[in-house]
Amino acid sequence: MELLSKSIIGFRTGRAGGATFRAEDPITAKALEPEFISALPEEVDEAAQLAAEAFTAFGRVTGKRKGQLLRLIAISLEAIHDLIVERAHLETALPKARLEGELARTAQQLRLFASLVEEGSWVTARIEHADLERKSNPKPDLRSMLRPLGPVVVFGASNFPLAFSVAGGDTASALAAGNPVIVKAHPAHPGTSELVGHVIRESIFACDLPEGIFSMLFDSGTSVGKALVMHPEVKAVGFTGSHAGGRALFDLAMARPKPIPVLAEMGSTNPVFVLPRALRARRSQIASGLFTSFTLGAGQFCTKPGLVFVPEGPDSASFIRDIETQVAESFPFFLLTSGIRDTFREATGERNQEPHVRSVASSQFSVPDVSSAVSAAFSETDAATFLSKPDLAKEIFGPTTLVVRHATKKDLFEIVASLDGHLAAAVHGTAEDFEEFAEVIHLLEEKVGRIVCNGFPTGVEVSPAMVHGGPYPATSDSRYTSVGTQAILRFARPICFQDCPASLLPDELKDANPLKIWRYVDGQMKR
Amino acid sequence: MELLSKSIIGFRTGRAGGATFRAEDPITAKALEPEFISALPEEVDEAAQLAAEAFTAFGRVTGKRKGQLLRLIAISLEAIHDLIVERAHLETALPKARLEGELARTAQQLRLFASLVEEGSWVTARIEHADLERKSNPKPDLRSMLRPLGPVVVFGASNFPLAFSVAGGDTASALAAGNPVIVKAHPAHPGTSELVGHVIRESIFACDLPEGIFSMLFDSGTSVGKALVMHPEVKAVGFTGSHAGGRALFDLAMARPKPIPVLAEMGSTNPVFVLPRALRARRSQIASGLFTSFTLGAGQFCTKPGLVFVPEGPDSASFIRDIETQVAESFPFFLLTSGIRDTFREATGERNQEPHVRSVASSQFSVPDVSSAVSAAFSETDAATFLSKPDLAKEIFGPTTLVVRHATKKDLFEIVASLDGHLAAAVHGTAEDFEEFAEVIHLLEEKVGRIVCNGFPTGVEVSPAMVHGGPYPATSDSRYTSVGTQAILRFARPICFQDCPASLLPDELKDANPLKIWRYVDGQMKR
Repeated sequence: MELLSKSIIGFRTGRAGGATFRAEDPITAKALEPEFISALPEEVDEAAQLAAEAFTAFGRVTGKRKGQLLRLIAISLEAIHDLIVERAHLETALPKARLEGELARTAQQLRLFASLVEEGSWVTARIEHADLERKSNPKPDLRSMLRPLGPVVVFGASNFPLAFSVAGGDTASALAAGNPVIVKAHPAHPGTSELVGHVIRESIFACDLPEGIFSMLFDSGTSVGKALVMHPEVKAVGFTGSHAGGRALFDLAMARPKPIPVLAEMGSTNPVFVLPRALRARRSQIASGLFTSFTLGAGQFCTKPGLVFVPEGPDSASFIRDIETQVAESFPFFLLTSGIRDTFREATGERNQEPHVRSVASSQFSVPDVSSAVSAAFSETDAATFLSKPDLAKEIFGPTTLVVRHATKKDLFEIVASLDGHLAAAVHGTAEDFEEFAEVIHLLEEKVGRIVCNGFPTGVEVSPAMVHGGPYPATSDSRYTSVGTQAILRFARPICFQDCPASLLPDELKDANPLKIWRYVDGQMKR
Repeated sequence: MELLSKSIIGFRTGRAGGATFRAEDPITAKALEPEFISALPEEVDEAAQLAAEAFTAFGRVTGKRKGQLLRLIAISLEAIHDLIVERAHLETALPKARLEGELARTAQQLRLFASLVEEGSWVTARIEHADLERKSNPKPDLRSMLRPLGPVVVFGASNFPLAFSVAGGDTASALAAGNPVIVKAHPAHPGTSELVGHVIRESIFACDLPEGIFSMLFDSGTSVGKALVMHPEVKAVGFTGSHAGGRALFDLAMARPKPIPVLAEMGSTNPVFVLPRALRARRSQIASGLFTSFTLGAGQFCTKPGLVFVPEGPDSASFIRDIETQVAESFPFFLLTSGIRDTFREATGERNQEPHVRSVASSQFSVPDVSSAVSAAFSETDAATFLSKPDLAKEIFGPTTLVVRHATKKDLFEIVASLDGHLAAAVHGTAEDFEEFAEVIHLLEEKVGRIVCNGFPTGVEVSPAMVHGGPYPATSDSRYTSVGTQAILRFARPICFQDCPASLLPDELKDANPLKIWRYVDGQMKR
């Protein structure tokens, strides 16, 4: 299958004329074939217009048909499994086994949203029958349910070229809700994006759905993304990436004449707390789990634990030595791009120059200079230093973590109080630890979207109860999750029908409940 | 009961030193006693700090106790019913019967949120048990539910001095979710605000709840409001009022280092469509209902129908004459403030100077000049003029509406397509009309939060299925409603507990379901 290296605009292929760019092989630092062509400003407009035209029809498509589309995308991705994994490996240097797992996860995610909309209860239908005899004034018949917002722009992440990219959670949930999607392809994996984009386009065609419900635009720079966010036909934005990128798009969208929601997941440092008895009882097991977690995907996960808090003492000294050994013995890690490598080196270098911050270990193996490889980096410091230098709490993308020793419970509570918003936090403790430090857990509830006990923040289950969100700066709106079925709520809004004839009501709101969904009817949950 | 005319900061009373101001009697245009004192900058900070300190404790208070508080506020408002209605009448010139109804609605709204949190299912608890045997990797135990955001600032509206003010829907829903509330009192009804604010404070004291969960600050200008929105401890803003005011606060909040949600309900023009057969069959009944609706509360409702679309012809000519008669026979209306009067006169005057816009009627009675009284104003135009002058679609606050005649179906669809976001739309039709014009209803779904058939947009039921929201500029975020039980979702966010010991879980997420709430457990809705 040859790559066309052009944008996808509905069922059309993008034109020539835009700036060209190539992906980079992170291992050799060499540019990869072919050359991709950035979308033109008029193509941004075409994609948005097509999406707007498609919305009215697609917004009313049944859950069954949307499910069919999502399932066809899943099965079609699996059908070209090898091709996708091969190209993604070339563009990201992520191990093939990891990419295979990610492709499986992407397909599973599409099927999860298919099930959700096939079942149909996600619209939270509410029905209240009229009461014309009510004393004060007659009560009207009221029925409400969730409906899609309109065209959604999705910015894929570099670190999950499948699960958080072209056919990732944002696209799956936006389509599931009934919104057309325009993806701005991440320039670090354009070939992977194109393969996946074509799968989506062919699936839409095969399902006989409107052309405009999917486009995917390439761009070597930022102008296409900005134009998409500013386009009047665009009604929401999903983004996964850096704080700088997410905030820039957020600011643009909020300054529009008509602001639109920007659901930006901007990563975080995901603090881990090791409580004293657990540290004593399971020290090396926790150290080993921590090492695996902060180097998973070369430390390029938004849930990477970048801060670890341990009580000062002989146990923490041994804990630090345990991690030290593993870091020293680790092979170099290939980062996604040379840009990420440069930032990683700079940020870890700066951190280690802070007084009272000690660089504990790096790999004993030499790191090839022509590639995006880096050595894992592991540092430690004390609570006073941590509390006086807020920059130490900032995310460093890549295989590194910072252990912070605290001497007193007071320090620990000060640390928790000082934390910004994070996606997740983890706490390791014994039953007695959890009893003594219950307040730590409770205070963390105000700081994060997810609390993990005796585990690590990496490994985000795609399921109904998952919350992959959290207070700013982890995300731009803590009221939403970008992973799990509830991610669909980001792209839907309620609408109420008052005294409407049954013929005009959507099936979800008809008295007979033809879809057999769960509904809140006259004060009772019913199906 | 003497008014203290000072801000309420937790259990304390505001200090002297701030700028003073008085409410105005809209009927006499005279300043009312007493003089109220604006909050000082340090008092803004005190209120925010108190709220932040109270949050941790209040956020964990049980639904039963929050319900108790809301019910006590309701009953205490009713206990000083006469005092409140008397003062509100003085400050707003709204008829006492209307204010009595509004007080009843306010109390009912508080009790509705009390019931909601006492019952408890609003937190959308989700439980997935672990599956350690899962093939790919063990599945963790995941449990999620909604939790409060933190201190919420509420800006009361001038047009509903009770139901959308100090103890209105924003305050009730924010408290119900477990958030401390700081109200910025509307300067047009400070005495009413103080009476209600004291009721809330006393109720909190009586319920032995933390002092900081309620403060109410006075200000003659905008600096207190701005300072509240910018305060780092404030986590969300609820606003009901003008587009200019809502947008200014929105812009401030979005430019914060850590942006916060602003739930602004900024009013709209709420188009009414009269379809041909209904116009023929029920012409004078619809004209009469329309007159009542656009003059209700002197036309100062955010759901006032400010645009009416009718098919051109003899029926519409008679329809216009029907309204003309009612307007001509109407007595002057007292607006809430002289500022609103000036804007009303200016805006209706400008509208009537547009070519092809005809001022059809105003009251035959003379309007007293020393007060905020105005005559109802009624104009008409044709579709071409309406479509070429977007300003004609803008909201004019006060007793006025604009009838637009359209000659063809094409005009009608162009009109619907041209509409901005509105809170509600109404369509009058016979069964045959609804069959022929079903597409009008469906297209309106993309434009509004609520569609009313054979009724008017005014009269917003406070209930589980209500949606008082809509696309921008009706609100700042179409995904929420500010009326009805779902308004609580504006001030809550999900949090997930992964593999947490039962002792650390909130009751809502314990296996035994001690609160007997509806939960989504391992793929099934259960109680």
